[in-house]
Amino acid sequence: MNQPDLLESPYHRFLGLQLVRYEEGLVEIDMPFREEFLRDDDSDWLHGGVLGALIDIAGDYAVYSKTGGDVPTVDLRIDYLRPAKRGCLRAIARTVKVGRRVCVADVEVKDERGQVVAIGRGVYATPAEQKLE
Amino acid sequence: MNQPDLLESPYHRFLGLQLVRYEEGLVEIDMPFREEFLRDDDSDWLHGGVLGALIDIAGDYAVYSKTGGDVPTVDLRIDYLRPAKRGCLRAIARTVKVGRRVCVADVEVKDERGQVVAIGRGVYATPAEQKLE
Amino acid sequence: MNQPDLLESPYHRFLGLQLVRYEEGLVEIDMPFREEFLRDDDSDWLHGGVLGALIDIAGDYAVYSKTGGDVPTVDLRIDYLRPAKRGCLRAIARTVKVGRRVCVADVEVKDERGQVVAIGRGVYATPAEQKLE
Amino acid sequence: MNQPDLLESPYHRFLGLQLVRYEEGLVEIDMPFREEFLRDDDSDWLHGGVLGALIDIAGDYAVYSKTGGDVPTVDLRIDYLRPAKRGCLRAIARTVKVGRRVCVADVEVKDERGQVVAIGRGVYATPAEQKLE
Repeated sequence: MNQPDLLESPYHRFLGLQLVRYEEGLVEIDMPFREEFLRDDDSDWLHGGVLGALIDIAGDYAVYSKTGGDVPTVDLRIDYLRPAKRGCLRAIARTVKVGRRVCVADVEVKDERGQVVAIGRGVYATPAEQKLE
Repeated sequence: MNQPDLLESPYHRFLGLQLVRYEEGLVEIDMPFREEFLRDDDSDWLHGGVLGALIDIAGDYAVYSKTGGDVPTVDLRIDYLRPAKRGCLRAIARTVKVGRRVCVADVEVKDERGQVVAIGRGVYATPAEQKLE
Repeated sequence: MNQPDLLESPYHRFLGLQLVRYEEGLVEIDMPFREEFLRDDDSDWLHGGVLGALIDIAGDYAVYSKTGGDVPTVDLRIDYLRPAKRGCLRAIARTVKVGRRVCVADVEVKDERGQVVAIGRGVYATPAEQKLE
Repeated sequence: MNQPDLLESPYHRFLGLQLVRYEEGLVEIDMPFREEFLRDDDSDWLHGGVLGALIDIAGDYAVYSKTGGDVPTVDLRIDYLRPAKRGCLRAIARTVKVGRRVCVADVEVKDERGQVVAIGRGVYATPAEQKLE
């Protein structure tokens, strides 16, 4: 498959995203550490808002790998399981459903030690030309 | 009430957040536009991940206005209602519940025309010293 | 507007639902108490699963009041704010968005004293014939 | 482990729940078909509210298998993936996190053909005596 270029998006460039796996329905994205991701000046914890964005984006590309086209997020749930410390994060996203109207993706975010620090589940609008399900 | 300093957080500084209202259980935060917030190079739409972060943060400060202490997000739901275009966004956050263990906050994000572009609902861990509910 | 008949559904009949308000985008449904709704034999608390169903249904009718047609639930979030004791519950549901593909509804459930015991937010599939938004 | 008695709850008795697997952090519950579960008189589809309750309950017992004590649901997300037709449903629930304050469980509901018809994710309050995480 042709891999999408994550860096056409200014926000993805800020996040420094790297596509490390791109299969149909399974996408992995790395987000190397930046100082701007920190929650507090005197903390080693990453800000939850950065993890949420990574989850949203990874789910979006998992759906894109199945449908092509633009797949805006309808809604998203994020569960923060434990603090993520400075270091690279990896999001692993899988499609759960690819429907006529909406798609569902599940995402895990792991830290450098392989611990799952957050999980997410998103609903994305299926591109109009899709006639799946 | 003493207003918290949003800019002690590197990520809040990147987002350029401005606290415009801070009452007990009701907080409003402005997020002026930056080019880095865009979804695509050739688009005027803001990236959803930026809105999600704004929602998380606004809900967090609404809870903080009631409890003080550190209030990590347990989970968060975001519903994207319509595209947000380049321009300042304002998040309005209210506490729905302040419990012994967890708090709940509701957040609306409006664009410069006053349209609601996204809504969110988050659960936050109540600081240990709290004995409310 | 023609009010829908809630009792065409066997499950709604079990729940004993009563439509008490039906306006465009605003619906209220009462659910009088039944012993089968209890969480435990030696408890006065209602089972959360009953409240969740009431929320889902009320949101569904709020959307139906705007769109007509069949509006299957895509996803639903429920936040349980405090225990609901034996007694009639009332769900108040409002549409937040009526889109081409999906609709969003917000629901509150109040007990007989008017306290909000649970809140919910659901996404529903817009009937195919709708050309709104 | 001592298996809990699901039938101490009037609502569980209405649902006819059967515990078919009970391990630490992994629980399976069957819900045989009843006519009262139907969405409409002239339909073979189960009502979503019944599936939501099954998800809530299965997640609750998965957490209980790890913590003991009473584990009230804090919040719950349900995604309906495809219609469930008349027939027995099975919920498979796993704990994702067992924390000091809250626990997280993931649940799948399968129909008799093994198809996943709905998924859920819930946050439950950890019993006060727990000192995990």
